Amino acid sequence: MSEQESLEQIRARIDALDDELLRLISERARCAQAVAKVKRDADPNAEFYRPEREAQILRKIQQRNPGPLDAEEMARLFREIMSACLALEEPLNVAFLGPEGTFTQAAALKHFGHSVHTVPLGAIDEVFREVESGAAHYGVVPVENSTEGVVTHTLDRFMQSPLKICGEVALRIHHHLMAKPGLAREQVKRIYSHQQSLAQCREWLDANLPQAERIPVSSNAVAARRAAEEEGAGAIASQAAAERYVLNVLNANIEDAPDNTTRFLVIGQRASGPSGRDKTSLLLSTRNRPGSLYRLLEPFARADVSLTRIESRPSHCVNWDYVFFIDVEGHEEDDKVRQAIAALEQEADLVKVLGSYPRAVL
Amino acid sequence: MSEQESLEQIRARIDALDDELLRLISERARCAQAVAKVKRDADPNAEFYRPEREAQILRKIQQRNPGPLDAEEMARLFREIMSACLALEEPLNVAFLGPEGTFTQAAALKHFGHSVHTVPLGAIDEVFREVESGAAHYGVVPVENSTEGVVTHTLDRFMQSPLKICGEVALRIHHHLMAKPGLAREQVKRIYSHQQSLAQCREWLDANLPQAERIPVSSNAVAARRAAEEEGAGAIASQAAAERYVLNVLNANIEDAPDNTTRFLVIGQRASGPSGRDKTSLLLSTRNRPGSLYRLLEPFARADVSLTRIESRPSHCVNWDYVFFIDVEGHEEDDKVRQAIAALEQEADLVKVLGSYPRAVL
Repeated sequence: MSEQESLEQIRARIDALDDELLRLISERARCAQAVAKVKRDADPNAEFYRPEREAQILRKIQQRNPGPLDAEEMARLFREIMSACLALEEPLNVAFLGPEGTFTQAAALKHFGHSVHTVPLGAIDEVFREVESGAAHYGVVPVENSTEGVVTHTLDRFMQSPLKICGEVALRIHHHLMAKPGLAREQVKRIYSHQQSLAQCREWLDANLPQAERIPVSSNAVAARRAAEEEGAGAIASQAAAERYVLNVLNANIEDAPDNTTRFLVIGQRASGPSGRDKTSLLLSTRNRPGSLYRLLEPFARADVSLTRIESRPSHCVNWDYVFFIDVEGHEEDDKVRQAIAALEQEADLVKVLGSYPRAVL
Repeated sequence: MSEQESLEQIRARIDALDDELLRLISERARCAQAVAKVKRDADPNAEFYRPEREAQILRKIQQRNPGPLDAEEMARLFREIMSACLALEEPLNVAFLGPEGTFTQAAALKHFGHSVHTVPLGAIDEVFREVESGAAHYGVVPVENSTEGVVTHTLDRFMQSPLKICGEVALRIHHHLMAKPGLAREQVKRIYSHQQSLAQCREWLDANLPQAERIPVSSNAVAARRAAEEEGAGAIASQAAAERYVLNVLNANIEDAPDNTTRFLVIGQRASGPSGRDKTSLLLSTRNRPGSLYRLLEPFARADVSLTRIESRPSHCVNWDYVFFIDVEGHEEDDKVRQAIAALEQEADLVKVLGSYPRAVL
């Protein structure tokens, strides 16, 4: 068979597959409409977006994916199909920490797909208020974010908010070493970056630029501006910052961990049901007595619940000395987690469940 | 049937559809691999991305789409499926006028889908050089762009470049009236914006703010900054600009034409074949004699070829007085277009075909 004949044969098969895909995606969209109708008949204010069901579908897709597309790419395609189907019934407004083009917007689109309407807001607090007032269905905020110079701490905002965490998103973040055009790596005397980015590149810097002074600044954008202004200065920042301040990237992807990720939270008014692989975030507070943290953690150990993260914060409240944010494996409706929380309520001055939500799928 | 039973039945059907979609998308990816193998066997340097074939597939999808998803949304899903399949064989590098988060990046992702690697560059000239050197497979540049303050004119760059236009992208652009928090619309004395944005909102301004002075500035970002700094000043700019400069949006979507779009060009090293609904962009130059433009346009009228756009530019070259950029309907391989170009070559001092490419599908 000639090249031309082979190509025509394969292309005819692709065309047939596309017709079939068109038919199936359309039927899927009609099913989504049918689900919405059943729900609306039972409750006129029903919500159609269910994070736990989406997470289950995406996990199954990844497990069953036969290749050659990799599982993450295939899940991304299904995310977009589900996003389009959902938008038919309930076009979601998703507020995020703007401006457009930030990692937080990328996180929002990764989580909800491109059929939602994203609304950039100027501060984490505004994102909370937009969701609290119902003007946006969901919000996306960074938990901590070295690259965009976030000041307000997202977790602090939960102390006064009735909102629930209903999802998490992880984004891979890359760091690059950059300097003014003409400056060679050996000539870099000082390196500016956010403290966290410096920490994430420590091994690389020790091996490759041990003599350069490392100077933490408030954001990587500020670091890039300094590198653009000062002689002999370099910065660790993103590709976007290099472009904005017309810097040369001397070395790309210098982060020590190849899977360096930043985490974002999805916030909304309703709790999310169990998906089978969930996390629960808790806010705990207690008076500062000897062994108080130890006693707070004991119920989890006894109930065999794994902690994935703990962070203490000043409480901004005279009644408590310490506030802890704790992430544990499992859903608050799981027996083990429920038991641990019940035991904790005996011990802590305050226990607030910030939300149970599916672990990041993509 | 109870609500729960109905939902379970529909969800079982969705699960079955998802299994089938997974199988078909995977088979489509294997077909894309087979196409690549046939091409590579015939020519080790073969290119796998064919803009004309993608345009044909997307048009067919839109025509056959049975709903309930709208045709544009369905085409977007297929764009992503094709993008993922292509990336298996040839991950495309696409350079664009940065930084990240600009309309130009949005245009690049709309045209190529999200499986490509986009590279932000600081100037239109750099995008051309990146593609000319082969470091990027394609580039995306605005033809004209009110919102990002482009200075270099993209069309001028074609005078010295061997690159071809191999696609166009249209993006809907919205304009908002904004001012400092606390300033009411009636208190706005001056309105800053790019000349083009002012023109695009003229009717709305005549009807709603006839007394305010309209002051053109170099970009809408500059306009927003002025509104943030000056008393009694407003700006017409994007939502992102409102966020960045902490301005209140007084009126959203004030553009006179509801389908206000900005156009971007895709540039590459190879010409694109006929897709059945194409455009051809030409660069013409002639000495300034009475009736010279009229004579240049005559061959198109005689060959029954429609002009969709014409723009004259100073030539920056002593030999020619005028340079014209002309877009016509049809592909340079079409008989009518070929005839018109042949006739034109008798009349003009220079005729350069910048490219024939599929008309924007989405």
